[in-house]
Amino acid sequence: MRSGLVGRSYAMLFASAGYDVRVYDASKEQLQRAVADMEQQLSALAADGLQRGCLTVQQTMAHVTATDSLEDCVTGARYIQECVPEDKDLKRGVWQKIDDMMESSDVVMASSTSGIVPSLLSDHLRHRHRFLVAHPANPPMLNPMVELVPAPWTDPSAVAEARTLMEQVGQVPIVLKREIEGFVQARIQAAIFHVAWQLIAEDYVDPLDVETAMHEGVGAWYAFMGPFSAEHINANGWLDLCSKYAQVVHRVQQTFSPPQPMQGPAATRLARELERWTPRDRLAERCAWRDRCMAALLRLRQTLDREEQEAEQPVS
Amino acid sequence: MRSGLVGRSYAMLFASAGYDVRVYDASKEQLQRAVADMEQQLSALAADGLQRGCLTVQQTMAHVTATDSLEDCVTGARYIQECVPEDKDLKRGVWQKIDDMMESSDVVMASSTSGIVPSLLSDHLRHRHRFLVAHPANPPMLNPMVELVPAPWTDPSAVAEARTLMEQVGQVPIVLKREIEGFVQARIQAAIFHVAWQLIAEDYVDPLDVETAMHEGVGAWYAFMGPFSAEHINANGWLDLCSKYAQVVHRVQQTFSPPQPMQGPAATRLARELERWTPRDRLAERCAWRDRCMAALLRLRQTLDREEQEAEQPVS
Repeated sequence: MRSGLVGRSYAMLFASAGYDVRVYDASKEQLQRAVADMEQQLSALAADGLQRGCLTVQQTMAHVTATDSLEDCVTGARYIQECVPEDKDLKRGVWQKIDDMMESSDVVMASSTSGIVPSLLSDHLRHRHRFLVAHPANPPMLNPMVELVPAPWTDPSAVAEARTLMEQVGQVPIVLKREIEGFVQARIQAAIFHVAWQLIAEDYVDPLDVETAMHEGVGAWYAFMGPFSAEHINANGWLDLCSKYAQVVHRVQQTFSPPQPMQGPAATRLARELERWTPRDRLAERCAWRDRCMAALLRLRQTLDREEQEAEQPVS
Repeated sequence: MRSGLVGRSYAMLFASAGYDVRVYDASKEQLQRAVADMEQQLSALAADGLQRGCLTVQQTMAHVTATDSLEDCVTGARYIQECVPEDKDLKRGVWQKIDDMMESSDVVMASSTSGIVPSLLSDHLRHRHRFLVAHPANPPMLNPMVELVPAPWTDPSAVAEARTLMEQVGQVPIVLKREIEGFVQARIQAAIFHVAWQLIAEDYVDPLDVETAMHEGVGAWYAFMGPFSAEHINANGWLDLCSKYAQVVHRVQQTFSPPQPMQGPAATRLARELERWTPRDRLAERCAWRDRCMAALLRLRQTLDREEQEAEQPVS
């Protein structure tokens, strides 16, 4: 564990399920801030009816210990979640230290990296067969998907244990069969950026109209369904969709420009538009708004799920 | 107008704003079904608090006339929305007939096509300078985005008039500056299919895990924000995002396979998985579920917007 934003989220998730969690940071001040912030976040979640499990805030926090000793943090752990900043060498170094301290080969070793494939973080480790990526969506308490990504040498049992743990704490894990750049989520985002960037860099449309096309259009589907299921029901089943539209989709894909880096004058124009929407000095407020939206959507989905179950319509 | 699903939606939208709407279909039976269905849909929307404008169902329907004469439908119209099936020759033929009947050059001529660029539908028309695409999201009453796409010869005033009309009836139009295959929404979808297909065809991940990555992950953002704004607030502004991650995104994009048509064994496997989720004989139920989700999300967003306004936080 580490006490940054992702580390705090994982600590809250695991502790909410009754697991004893040790949170490490080299800075005692940072640890104090982390503990105070977790208490505050858990209270806000409980007030919104979005707490995980059935423990109170106090009971949950009783499972959290903060330590500035990496050795104390690691010793006796069954699962280690590393959440240091997105820097390959930093992460490799931290894992080297942890690996040297580990006495057991039964520990699951998981990195929260959003974009570094696990083989590049673990090839040097004695226990690399226990290593994988467990990358959460953002914010993890409100957006439950976690990507589990094995390196070529990862033992399937380590992936299975991570999956079980994530399910126990109420996350929704997906499991990659082997590693690939960007995993699943960042590949989807990169694909959207690919076409969105072409549309604005070649001036087909104003940047904020791309935004609108998403949040007033298909984006509403994606809060409830993925790309395939949305079309499965739009058409008369997936094969019907394919027979009618696979060629159309492919024709559209043929018109994609090669991916361009998002930089230069178009990036500056886009930044100006986005800053009119939310100036940089108000990003914190906008993040809080985003989290209110995420929390409200989560509650809405829970309500809809409950209604479906009560109506005994097994289709959903 | 035509009396299919999209035609009905446009008729309801325009009539709800107090416009007189003439709905054409060659089949009298189809027209009867359309009118009955519109009444039913408008009542359901009103019961959900999702009606547009301030007219009652009866008042709205009083603005709708059904006719099996294309000439009656077209004569005197200020705006014509064609919603015949997605077939280029069929649409060209219908527009040829309408064009021959039109006496004024002031009419806006709009096609609902989801995937045919406007130049291919209008090059043969006398009034082609008044022609554009007005493609709605699905379902149009609950998902308000409309793509307005001009042909190279479209008079900007026709686009401006269509935009004003869409805004008046409560839709959220986006305007393309020139035509491109797939417009905006289908390009975004095609981009997602591009990477999602690679992930399942090359067996990196089970198909339904791609779905989960969307609806339990980034999909929640896209119900409220587009791809750029989501990252503007995830990072410390867009330019910060670019400086830190533009290269990472580009590196991920370099690993995209060339787009493959969605067919063959992977399509069959995917269809099997999707049919386990929703069998083909229960697609109608699932569509109803999707529309309940869309309606609930729309109400949620209205509530969140109201709360933000009441809190006088101009940031949102």
